[in-house]
Amino acid sequence: MLISLTVDAPRATVDAIVDAARATGRQARVMPDGRGGQVIGLDAPIGADLLGLPGIGAVSESHKPYMLASREHRAPSVVRVGGVEIGGGRPVLMAGPCVVEGRREMIEAAEAVKAAGADILRGGAFKPRSSPYAFQGFGEEGLKHLAAARAVTGLPVVTEVLEPDQVEMVAEYADMLQIGARNMANFPLLRRVGATDTPVLLKRGFSATVEEWLMSAEYVLAGGNPNVVLCERGVRGFDPLVRFSLDLNAVPLAKELSHLPVIVDPSHGTGKRSLVPRMALAGIAAGADGLIIEAHPDPERSLCDAAQTIVPAELARIHRSVMAMHEALDITREDRSPVGTGALALT
Amino acid sequence: MLISLTVDAPRATVDAIVDAARATGRQARVMPDGRGGQVIGLDAPIGADLLGLPGIGAVSESHKPYMLASREHRAPSVVRVGGVEIGGGRPVLMAGPCVVEGRREMIEAAEAVKAAGADILRGGAFKPRSSPYAFQGFGEEGLKHLAAARAVTGLPVVTEVLEPDQVEMVAEYADMLQIGARNMANFPLLRRVGATDTPVLLKRGFSATVEEWLMSAEYVLAGGNPNVVLCERGVRGFDPLVRFSLDLNAVPLAKELSHLPVIVDPSHGTGKRSLVPRMALAGIAAGADGLIIEAHPDPERSLCDAAQTIVPAELARIHRSVMAMHEALDITREDRSPVGTGALALT
Amino acid sequence: MLISLTVDAPRATVDAIVDAARATGRQARVMPDGRGGQVIGLDAPIGADLLGLPGIGAVSESHKPYMLASREHRAPSVVRVGGVEIGGGRPVLMAGPCVVEGRREMIEAAEAVKAAGADILRGGAFKPRSSPYAFQGFGEEGLKHLAAARAVTGLPVVTEVLEPDQVEMVAEYADMLQIGARNMANFPLLRRVGATDTPVLLKRGFSATVEEWLMSAEYVLAGGNPNVVLCERGVRGFDPLVRFSLDLNAVPLAKELSHLPVIVDPSHGTGKRSLVPRMALAGIAAGADGLIIEAHPDPERSLCDAAQTIVPAELARIHRSVMAMHEALDITREDRSPVGTGALALT
Amino acid sequence: MLISLTVDAPRATVDAIVDAARATGRQARVMPDGRGGQVIGLDAPIGADLLGLPGIGAVSESHKPYMLASREHRAPSVVRVGGVEIGGGRPVLMAGPCVVEGRREMIEAAEAVKAAGADILRGGAFKPRSSPYAFQGFGEEGLKHLAAARAVTGLPVVTEVLEPDQVEMVAEYADMLQIGARNMANFPLLRRVGATDTPVLLKRGFSATVEEWLMSAEYVLAGGNPNVVLCERGVRGFDPLVRFSLDLNAVPLAKELSHLPVIVDPSHGTGKRSLVPRMALAGIAAGADGLIIEAHPDPERSLCDAAQTIVPAELARIHRSVMAMHEALDITREDRSPVGTGALALT
Repeated sequence: MLISLTVDAPRATVDAIVDAARATGRQARVMPDGRGGQVIGLDAPIGADLLGLPGIGAVSESHKPYMLASREHRAPSVVRVGGVEIGGGRPVLMAGPCVVEGRREMIEAAEAVKAAGADILRGGAFKPRSSPYAFQGFGEEGLKHLAAARAVTGLPVVTEVLEPDQVEMVAEYADMLQIGARNMANFPLLRRVGATDTPVLLKRGFSATVEEWLMSAEYVLAGGNPNVVLCERGVRGFDPLVRFSLDLNAVPLAKELSHLPVIVDPSHGTGKRSLVPRMALAGIAAGADGLIIEAHPDPERSLCDAAQTIVPAELARIHRSVMAMHEALDITREDRSPVGTGALALT
Repeated sequence: MLISLTVDAPRATVDAIVDAARATGRQARVMPDGRGGQVIGLDAPIGADLLGLPGIGAVSESHKPYMLASREHRAPSVVRVGGVEIGGGRPVLMAGPCVVEGRREMIEAAEAVKAAGADILRGGAFKPRSSPYAFQGFGEEGLKHLAAARAVTGLPVVTEVLEPDQVEMVAEYADMLQIGARNMANFPLLRRVGATDTPVLLKRGFSATVEEWLMSAEYVLAGGNPNVVLCERGVRGFDPLVRFSLDLNAVPLAKELSHLPVIVDPSHGTGKRSLVPRMALAGIAAGADGLIIEAHPDPERSLCDAAQTIVPAELARIHRSVMAMHEALDITREDRSPVGTGALALT
Repeated sequence: MLISLTVDAPRATVDAIVDAARATGRQARVMPDGRGGQVIGLDAPIGADLLGLPGIGAVSESHKPYMLASREHRAPSVVRVGGVEIGGGRPVLMAGPCVVEGRREMIEAAEAVKAAGADILRGGAFKPRSSPYAFQGFGEEGLKHLAAARAVTGLPVVTEVLEPDQVEMVAEYADMLQIGARNMANFPLLRRVGATDTPVLLKRGFSATVEEWLMSAEYVLAGGNPNVVLCERGVRGFDPLVRFSLDLNAVPLAKELSHLPVIVDPSHGTGKRSLVPRMALAGIAAGADGLIIEAHPDPERSLCDAAQTIVPAELARIHRSVMAMHEALDITREDRSPVGTGALALT
Repeated sequence: MLISLTVDAPRATVDAIVDAARATGRQARVMPDGRGGQVIGLDAPIGADLLGLPGIGAVSESHKPYMLASREHRAPSVVRVGGVEIGGGRPVLMAGPCVVEGRREMIEAAEAVKAAGADILRGGAFKPRSSPYAFQGFGEEGLKHLAAARAVTGLPVVTEVLEPDQVEMVAEYADMLQIGARNMANFPLLRRVGATDTPVLLKRGFSATVEEWLMSAEYVLAGGNPNVVLCERGVRGFDPLVRFSLDLNAVPLAKELSHLPVIVDPSHGTGKRSLVPRMALAGIAAGADGLIIEAHPDPERSLCDAAQTIVPAELARIHRSVMAMHEALDITREDRSPVGTGALALT
């Protein structure tokens, strides 16, 4: 059951509903509705008597199975990472090398992507590699290099966490925890990041439907962490010329179904450097709130994913184009407008 | 073998090569290279003596199997449909109902999409329907309605042709022949449209790789018809919430491999009206030269594909956004710039 | 509307229904029900008065959209090709080279596959090739070689037809017309083979759903040709180690939904010689009524598809294994038994 | 580097290689080769001097990236679970309910599947559910019910483990640890089960290639646990009539590339009860060493996956058919024979 509370709903109403839920062993999850009010998600319906309390707006007994991630009763969310707002209108650019290499290299890369326009720094310390014999990242040492690069540049840091027991440790260094595509349905890991309040970047699985992706987001939200950003990063396709097939249909679809911000990863979503610029622009045009792009001062010497990594100068060109397109489309206004009769409004 | 001829190559050089090819029972296909010169595609190498003739530039013995469609030795093509240039820089908008309904309805629809900014009118007279019991279109009667709508609005007309024997008849009415996704590998049909000089809109098959699509274009080009425009219209995916998965990776990939213009069909590529506007913009941002969109004054009364058909007012909003984005990105300049070191140049 | 007629239904009842349909401009298609009675498929319902005529059994107003291909009211069909029964219980083996090479080669290949256990000879005279520059088959000359091989060995012949205008000519030589995967939704071609009474082998499209495949069969059946055999030949998948992904789920699914026989093509369905034997057995175990396999006395010299072509000795081993498995499973009995509570009966 | 040791290789040779590897900080992994000898997998080449030691057979510097899982230098493995041999020739049947329900229900289900021919009991105590609000299994309580059912029936038990920290606890109760499809690339979990010696059932991911699947097996083998059984359970497809697409091509392909046993899950691989019997047979015919099937005395009351769960009587019919087919094909002999010239030998 989803209950919408008005902006002026008294605190007592919220408490009464939460208490009633707990009294019967159920959970009540209170979240801001993005318009000044609140939404309460309940595992099971509560008594009709409570529904007459002051401040109660719409009540839905039938709703999407991902009730907390759903756009029903909600305005689009804004997630804050360090001082950066994702979903607030201005497209956000996350960039950095595939893998953290060393302290000096990380600082250099951070300075380069910052100069190119990046808002958030990415870099992998724990790498999920398909071979047990491949380099698996520098681990906590890498996290320290990321923190050093943040100290120098001021850029907040997003990095991947691979297993439940690492979550708290990685969260000590990172501003945002990345759940990789391979772990989209690693439910124990999702529960653990749901127990923190660190923002979460949730990549879509290689062959997950949009609704399965939102159900995974629901695990984090149901754990009490409202700071989830979705990331489309390509699905398995059949064309051998690309590594993955960037599924941009998923962007307006996820935004139609959910209030969560969505960003796009054109690096993994193509696996091919020459396609990254165009697919970055396409991601923003599709309605994404930002991009995450692999960039390295010297891609050919990158410790992984060289084929899809671009140079900072290319990143700067993408950034300029994205900003020009954003102004032309006035994306802020569009995404804030109601979905209405089934068509995302365009100016 | 591909032979590049300089702008000032003497006519005698071309004749000598063509004659040499014919003398050994092979074919020589001469095409403009888009930069003022010409390219000759030969089934098999010719004698080394001929390669010293005046006006011969680069000679490639090893090239893509789609030698005429390949971007090797070629600048991007411009295809003219009526007075409209596709690939010339300005994004082109094709729009109209799924199926031609009647004379009056067709003229009304044409006027509505023209007012919304469309350059070319689409409408189906021969419809490929998965059921033998479903409405199959009005046939030649429908073509006459299209011609009437052209007469009234001045919009050139694109319509689908389903079988080899229809090609000449449809070409009498249409300015551009559409080969549907189901017929992308209907080689007898491709050969027949290759024998005309009517421009061809070649939709990508439901699960065709980009190189298979270019090989199908090669059938038309090899027949002597240089006027081919590619159309990405979605591939089979696994998410039940969309009918097809619009594969925008294919747009910059096709433009990197081929000189042919590429347009995008966000209507079939989503099957869902609410996703059309965003995916139209994303298609243009991905580098497409235009769009083809199903629009109808009253979508719910459309004889087919109602769920993906938009109203003219929505089409007008898409058109305005596309043009604003185009100006902001200065797409003309980008697509004309050399692909260079593997990255499509962005401003 | 589907009307089931009892075994002893008077001729007058059939005539009355057919006449009533025609009188209102609709079609009535009468087909044997495989149990001695008949089924009539009507485009639209007929008057209730007629439904009281003698000999009328079940009447369904709501049925599958592929009413003639549907298993509703029908026992499994048997299709006869030359003297060979497909769907009659004993697994049928079709085999031969990808492409007809020459008269002598064709006769040798036919003798070899016959000795290995083949019932029907396959070979391509018109080849759909993705490149316009590739060998396209010997055409009618090839059909003559097939006919010569039939004269020598007694094996009926199946060969592909590519376009509507060829249908009658190919049917003069062939015992069975193959519609290739690329043409599964070539509706003009399906209509033309539906106008003959030559058996049709309908391959599934690269990414067609089972119901789309049955709708294509419906085109042939609706044209009046009841002799359709379905062929599963692999769908597009994502694993680069195989050319296609043989989708055996489609075999019991098609047999559950349709009365038409189903055969399996493990050659195209894998693209890899070493997988053919096992996938041939798996196809039969999945319930297929037969196999079509590319075999050539010297695969490396085969004019196409060498990588998936096996030698006659391997074909003979497959044939022996299939027959041993068939006897062990008593497949005849199973497939004839009612589908009942949702599970295909196994002994 | 892969080094093959002969049957009579002296212990000193093994020790010398292992010591040499360790001395340079590398790992040497010694595994039986299935023919009485041993194979050593080394992260990096060792000195040429050591390669002259007595008992050294073939030495490969270039081999598959999954050197321990590869069939190079190896005969097929046999994995023992309780007293049951998987890969030993006789097809193995694992069966049981989707989820452990209660003690009494589990014992009843175990007795029913044992009577139907099952060798190993399956049942989920920890369930990966796409919704955080769905029943997640009874946890350790469920494991106790499984142990109780084993005590009564003697059937060894396979059950899923979801996170690294659970591995030791689950291994106390289970005879075989299942890694579910969602966790195929959960590398921390794979490493942890690799550190035990409990047999592992490794399901293929929803869209994993066969080589990615073998790389995941390599994680377990590299950890020192040689007891890995692969399980094909269906990949994501596009046909809405089935939940997954059972990819049987993967069975002979995995057996061609790897020495590990392979089993097939026709329950998840179809999601549809009526297809389970035929696809079970097809799996065995494709060369699988066994099956895992969801069976429940009263499927409609099953706590999950009801639509794909069969009754014990159906399981018994499948078992009888599998055994009849196995005898007819003499599968033992085939799978033991060398793969030779690229074709799996069939009798």
